[in-house]
Amino acid sequence: MVDLVVVGSVALDSVKTPFGDVKDILGGAATYSSVAASIFCKPGLVGVVGKDFPSEHMEFLRARNIETSGLSVAEGKTFRWSGYYEYDMNQAHTTDTQLNVFSSFKPKVPDAYLGAKYLFLANIDPVLQLDVLRQFKDLELVALDTMNFWIETKKEELLSVISKVDVLLINDAEARQLMDTPNLVRAARMLLKRGPSAVVIKKGEHGALLFTDGVCFFAPAYPLEDLKDPTGAGDSFAGGLMGYLASTGDVSFENMKRAVIYGSAVASFNAEDFSLDRLRQIGMKDVSGRYKEFEKLVEF
Amino acid sequence: MVDLVVVGSVALDSVKTPFGDVKDILGGAATYSSVAASIFCKPGLVGVVGKDFPSEHMEFLRARNIETSGLSVAEGKTFRWSGYYEYDMNQAHTTDTQLNVFSSFKPKVPDAYLGAKYLFLANIDPVLQLDVLRQFKDLELVALDTMNFWIETKKEELLSVISKVDVLLINDAEARQLMDTPNLVRAARMLLKRGPSAVVIKKGEHGALLFTDGVCFFAPAYPLEDLKDPTGAGDSFAGGLMGYLASTGDVSFENMKRAVIYGSAVASFNAEDFSLDRLRQIGMKDVSGRYKEFEKLVEF
Repeated sequence: MVDLVVVGSVALDSVKTPFGDVKDILGGAATYSSVAASIFCKPGLVGVVGKDFPSEHMEFLRARNIETSGLSVAEGKTFRWSGYYEYDMNQAHTTDTQLNVFSSFKPKVPDAYLGAKYLFLANIDPVLQLDVLRQFKDLELVALDTMNFWIETKKEELLSVISKVDVLLINDAEARQLMDTPNLVRAARMLLKRGPSAVVIKKGEHGALLFTDGVCFFAPAYPLEDLKDPTGAGDSFAGGLMGYLASTGDVSFENMKRAVIYGSAVASFNAEDFSLDRLRQIGMKDVSGRYKEFEKLVEF
Repeated sequence: MVDLVVVGSVALDSVKTPFGDVKDILGGAATYSSVAASIFCKPGLVGVVGKDFPSEHMEFLRARNIETSGLSVAEGKTFRWSGYYEYDMNQAHTTDTQLNVFSSFKPKVPDAYLGAKYLFLANIDPVLQLDVLRQFKDLELVALDTMNFWIETKKEELLSVISKVDVLLINDAEARQLMDTPNLVRAARMLLKRGPSAVVIKKGEHGALLFTDGVCFFAPAYPLEDLKDPTGAGDSFAGGLMGYLASTGDVSFENMKRAVIYGSAVASFNAEDFSLDRLRQIGMKDVSGRYKEFEKLVEF
């Protein structure tokens, strides 16, 4: 039984940061999200990889209790992303994107996933996000992430799928861009009018803001002294958030605040090492410990 | 009886933001700080203005219960700063600075101020900051603010005065620059080793971090929908923080956390209008109301 369905990219990344340089390591929004979610619940992954996808990665996902029957293996090469970070690690610089098998990705949700009540549409073409959403009948909560590329190339389609989801996850620059206002609070209020009952503005190292009708909650980022690679921070944040919601079955605002903190906790671990290397080592006990540190961090 | 002495610039500013354009309005770090502090305690101002300083500004300061015997009036013109903000209002762009009477400023603390237990050295030449500090004998707590200009031109003098204060207030970019590390947490820890028992990292619209030995506290910025002019945000933050500490006489970490929130509350009001126009309208009741909103903002 799958608790949470995650749809998005599974990739092989090449990443350079001031702290190291790695090639063809496990990455992709759906990978980070589902591994983060697997700390809390049983995720089912929907995505595509090429024949070159190392079997050890597939085994790792399964060992994390992630259902992979929705992860198809297609002729060709796995999606690849290359990028680097300078000293300001809040900003990723993309040097190369090879869509490969991802270019003809038509997400098909396996029947075994259709009983899930929670769906996370990670950053992919909004037309595909809408197509996936339509394959479900009885969802409790749907969250969606996106990126500037879709705002610039498929704004109408993006706004259409946004109107059908419960939670929109979006970074600060994208929220401003999508609503065409420099003010983040106004952008969030305008986005709420587009349909979602909650908007989560991701500000990277500056934390996250959760907006619902008339209420705002702020979660700081964990102050990390050893940050090695921020790749996947937003995705592991979303996965932690959705995994916690799915595990508790409680979508109240009070519980959503806790979910944002759990997401922030998982994301902070993720940035401590390259790829999913830090997430491989942690479990619920570590995340709970960091959750308590967040309580102390903001308590006055 | 003065509770808190504030030393720094009193200026006439010309400011342009996406929301307006004003000329020769009341400004200056010591002005913002002392007016903010006056919500909580009786500040004494040390600074210099020229013969052209409008008498209405002097009357306003006195009406706010600010002691002005330390604000000397010199032959010449008042210090002037001109700058503008683009849509990203976290970044001020200076177009002109005319030091005028400020270029020969030799701060002299009036005897009537020397009984104060709290001292705020707003951003001026670190040599002058040290000179002011030496005029006091029995202080409870000294805080210091600075800027990149002094890091670049008088780093040794700045580190020397930093070694003698209790609280260092510094923005994120300057903390990284001064300690030559991209990591903010590491920069804060390194600064703590230089002498202060507390370091407050100001991140503008992204809030503030308070570090003491082994402990960290995070205060968000208030999510403002109507931000008109961020000039003086850092100064009114410092003034609110120091005014609250001076009014309570409690320099414990627990109380310092509350002081950071009070500072954030005052700074958020200040950004709602140009110059000190918003601070002119508010009192303790407004600040207490916003303090409660901060509690709700981070509570989970």
